[in-house]
Amino acid sequence: MLRSRFLLILFTIKIILCVQGQVQDDEEFSYMVGLSEPLRSTLEWNYYENDATRLIFRWNITLLNNYGGILAFSNYDLNTNNLDVIILSNDEKIYNAYTDENSLLFIPKNRVKLSYTILHSGYIKNKKEKEYSIQIIRPIDTCDKEKRNYIIDSGTTHLLTGLITYEDFQKLKQNQLIKIDIEQMNLTLQRVQLLKTRVKFRQIPDEDPHIDFLNQDVTIPNVETTYWCTRFKLPSNIVEKPHHIIRFDGVISPQSNGIVHHMELFHCDVSSDIDIPEYNGVCTSEQKPMGLTPCRRVIGAWALGATNFTYPDEAGGLIGEPRKSSYVILEVHFNNQYLKKGIVDQSGIRIYYTSTLRKYDAGIMEVGLEYNAKNSIPPQTNKFRISGYCTGECTEVTLPKDGITVFASQLHTHLNGIQTFTRIIKTNGEIITLNIDRHYSPHFQEIRLLPEPILIKPGDMILHTCIYNTQIRTNMTFGGYGITDEMCVNYMHYYPRTNLELCKTSVRDDALDQFFETMKEYDYANTSMSQTVYENYRSIRWTPLTTAILQEFYEIAPIHLSCNGSDGNYSPKFEWTREYRPQEPKQRDVPLETAAKCV
Amino acid sequence: MLRSRFLLILFTIKIILCVQGQVQDDEEFSYMVGLSEPLRSTLEWNYYENDATRLIFRWNITLLNNYGGILAFSNYDLNTNNLDVIILSNDEKIYNAYTDENSLLFIPKNRVKLSYTILHSGYIKNKKEKEYSIQIIRPIDTCDKEKRNYIIDSGTTHLLTGLITYEDFQKLKQNQLIKIDIEQMNLTLQRVQLLKTRVKFRQIPDEDPHIDFLNQDVTIPNVETTYWCTRFKLPSNIVEKPHHIIRFDGVISPQSNGIVHHMELFHCDVSSDIDIPEYNGVCTSEQKPMGLTPCRRVIGAWALGATNFTYPDEAGGLIGEPRKSSYVILEVHFNNQYLKKGIVDQSGIRIYYTSTLRKYDAGIMEVGLEYNAKNSIPPQTNKFRISGYCTGECTEVTLPKDGITVFASQLHTHLNGIQTFTRIIKTNGEIITLNIDRHYSPHFQEIRLLPEPILIKPGDMILHTCIYNTQIRTNMTFGGYGITDEMCVNYMHYYPRTNLELCKTSVRDDALDQFFETMKEYDYANTSMSQTVYENYRSIRWTPLTTAILQEFYEIAPIHLSCNGSDGNYSPKFEWTREYRPQEPKQRDVPLETAAKCV
Repeated sequence: MLRSRFLLILFTIKIILCVQGQVQDDEEFSYMVGLSEPLRSTLEWNYYENDATRLIFRWNITLLNNYGGILAFSNYDLNTNNLDVIILSNDEKIYNAYTDENSLLFIPKNRVKLSYTILHSGYIKNKKEKEYSIQIIRPIDTCDKEKRNYIIDSGTTHLLTGLITYEDFQKLKQNQLIKIDIEQMNLTLQRVQLLKTRVKFRQIPDEDPHIDFLNQDVTIPNVETTYWCTRFKLPSNIVEKPHHIIRFDGVISPQSNGIVHHMELFHCDVSSDIDIPEYNGVCTSEQKPMGLTPCRRVIGAWALGATNFTYPDEAGGLIGEPRKSSYVILEVHFNNQYLKKGIVDQSGIRIYYTSTLRKYDAGIMEVGLEYNAKNSIPPQTNKFRISGYCTGECTEVTLPKDGITVFASQLHTHLNGIQTFTRIIKTNGEIITLNIDRHYSPHFQEIRLLPEPILIKPGDMILHTCIYNTQIRTNMTFGGYGITDEMCVNYMHYYPRTNLELCKTSVRDDALDQFFETMKEYDYANTSMSQTVYENYRSIRWTPLTTAILQEFYEIAPIHLSCNGSDGNYSPKFEWTREYRPQEPKQRDVPLETAAKCV
Repeated sequence: MLRSRFLLILFTIKIILCVQGQVQDDEEFSYMVGLSEPLRSTLEWNYYENDATRLIFRWNITLLNNYGGILAFSNYDLNTNNLDVIILSNDEKIYNAYTDENSLLFIPKNRVKLSYTILHSGYIKNKKEKEYSIQIIRPIDTCDKEKRNYIIDSGTTHLLTGLITYEDFQKLKQNQLIKIDIEQMNLTLQRVQLLKTRVKFRQIPDEDPHIDFLNQDVTIPNVETTYWCTRFKLPSNIVEKPHHIIRFDGVISPQSNGIVHHMELFHCDVSSDIDIPEYNGVCTSEQKPMGLTPCRRVIGAWALGATNFTYPDEAGGLIGEPRKSSYVILEVHFNNQYLKKGIVDQSGIRIYYTSTLRKYDAGIMEVGLEYNAKNSIPPQTNKFRISGYCTGECTEVTLPKDGITVFASQLHTHLNGIQTFTRIIKTNGEIITLNIDRHYSPHFQEIRLLPEPILIKPGDMILHTCIYNTQIRTNMTFGGYGITDEMCVNYMHYYPRTNLELCKTSVRDDALDQFFETMKEYDYANTSMSQTVYENYRSIRWTPLTTAILQEFYEIAPIHLSCNGSDGNYSPKFEWTREYRPQEPKQRDVPLETAAKCV
């Protein structure tokens, strides 16, 4: 019930994203995002290299008479607990309000003073509506002692916009608590990365050589969710010799704006003599040929809110290797929440390439958890933590002497992920955060350029952690491939390309057996050696207590470490028979990036 | 079922205890105990001041043909796991065998060599039976690396004797495991303190002035368990001025030998103007007057296996205070397991006294746990640990500057106690074990003289710990007064007498409320603020897991500390409103006393 309502609201979001738009007045804004159609609200923002602590927003909104506007920062999705809320009241004043852990809205007596200015306002539509343009200047971290203010970071930001009635606002001013109600307040959600990485890579001009892989007049089905797959053949000029992909863009048909949710371009990373059948249809269809299965090597991607992706000057994504397949698959996720009919789409991915090979081939390495049931999550938990440990033993024997440079990263979970981050633990114990999203959403998976490239050397550990919320689940969520199963990986984009393709872990089978045995002994669970892992997990009475024990177990149990080359086998020098232990660092807090020095 | 069987066997033990008996041959034995009537078995033993590591036993036993004899050390009561067993086989050889954690008997290949000699053997009763006298010399701690040998200590030793058939013994020799079966093997239990304290106090000659408080021809009821209470008046020569009790003995009628289980003499510690009604009857009878309730100050006691109790030269138990009551109550516990009829008993306690007051009045101080439901024990646990913390804050303001000297101690629990010990934590952190029974039995509660007097100074903490086994219980065992409730106290006998009578703790009410709240949140327990402590404890689903959590809670929760004078009120200088924390020392192991240096 809760979950279906959640999904319903999620898909009613109207998304209009324009990058590098410009506005008048004193401030020139670099970024803009459309927030919600019913309110006709947009947010523009800017921040500066020389003042990393400050953000300037311009919120443009049209309100009906007798209504105020709400702009709120949520911690994840449509969760309305602990919101940081800005209210434009119908008296044309601006207030900073908050919700408590029960979604009750209040204006506290002592609050951090932010700078608000109403730049412009004016009636429209026979004075039934009024347009506002509001400027808000706030620090990235307000250092509020009660930690009510949202701390802006380089991860995903969930923005909620909605309406507040005159009556509700009066109650609020009289110190009455008001329950935030998603439906009544018309709250809609938009996800955006506010602090984008401003890298210094050489820009590839739009007119440079490129190929488009676009939907060929696909009529978008009038159902909410469609994944559309199309097979393409790389042109012969690319196939005949190696090329480097040096930039890729999302190309969105204007008529599909707000419906195309994300797109991925996969290379079929198999030998050229393997046949890849033609296909142009729904990816999840039973008619889709099995022969398309090996096409999983991502060579380009776009998701809502993503900008163009430019490779570092010294590297490019290799394509056109002589003995490799020349086929690629475009996968487009349509999110047609208004069930519009008859829209014909030509969206897709544009690849910029060069035959002048750059210094390094770029590669993609997968770190985190193995896709199996040993990495499973109990139901009804609001922050279950699980980590994959790419230990020093694997990086020692697989990475080149001078290490690899990671320049971009795509964090990936299925539906329950709410936070995820990758840390490098250097051999001297130093901990470096490679990528973090404190407000991660599986519905907003971008390949993000890192603020600065990160060097990983042989012997370093790559610790990848995911935090899940399974409060809407009543049964165990298993690690696995299905959309209702879970994953926890980071696709790291790096150079120079090495043979190491995958470095992931799960607890060892015998350790998990011991855990089941312990739960039988200590909590009278009906676990048994003759049952499957699935049955055993389901035999446990999941409470916050047993959940906490499983989490503790995952952090201390010996692990199975996959340290695999691109052929799927263990790297030759890696001793896979050894016993590996998780090496959980003392710093267990989710890293926090803030330039502010709070005292 | 299990419990009733346990009690049945417990009461079928035939006990004959003779102290300071003597035997011929080369060794003169100081101690002897009758082990079991059916086998006609006795054990004599000796140990030496100048060789504290060695014990010499003589085991005298009569066996039927085709049977061997078993003498075993058990950890508690009739528990047959991890026994250290001596077998006299019918081939007249002696073997050291053991049981595992499932009560299966076996003879290991590598075992510690003990010295066994058959001193004497001879047929009786037309060669149907044979008498043996066996000498066993063994170290107190054999330092067996596999820890199979029982470590002899100054606490209670549980000795099991029984029979083994020719067939079973043959199986055993052929390395087959044999289940120890209490009924089939006729196993009976005798408890004894092997290493008695040999103090140097001046002995009080038997003919010195004394009064006897003896049962006045009580016909022992032919039921298993009777507590008999008799009121006595102290003679006028004692009442008219203060006297010191300097020794007390148990006096056992010969015909009641083996039936009298323990006896206590209580002084009615109230003002002389309070009437104490006459009584001579069953203590638990409804006819027993309520007026006897204040008679709880122990001035003499005897239990099975106890020797005479002599006070240190410088102290005596005060009696005959002018304004105090002159009444005492004798309580005798009859354990008539054969339901014998018509035995007329004159057993009781003999008090030796002097009007020449010694330097100090001796006092009794109670440390450990408060008698309330906050100190409760979950069911089905085999080693639940709980401690009372008489903290430095109490001893600081109540003990005299030069401290008090503890010379004797009576450890007390109800039916579930299996180990109990008191430690003094000096202000510098040093830990001194005051009294310990690693094989404690509530059925064998002696006032034991300490091997050497222990000084407790102001600021020292007195930490008293009990370990319980509730495997036969299906419901929570609450702290309280009833025999099925539990207690955990040490009655410490000391001088000079101070005003501090009781120093005990339990967790604070608000902390326990928090615990119940946590169990509701983490384990979905049906606890509630509107329920009683009893109901809340019963609302929890007790598993080894939740049990471990409660134990952890007891060790870290803030405590309520009673630091009470003899009037039952808080000591005047004690700040009872302060918040006290348990101060659990790092050394959590049950202390082990052994003179052996095991490598």
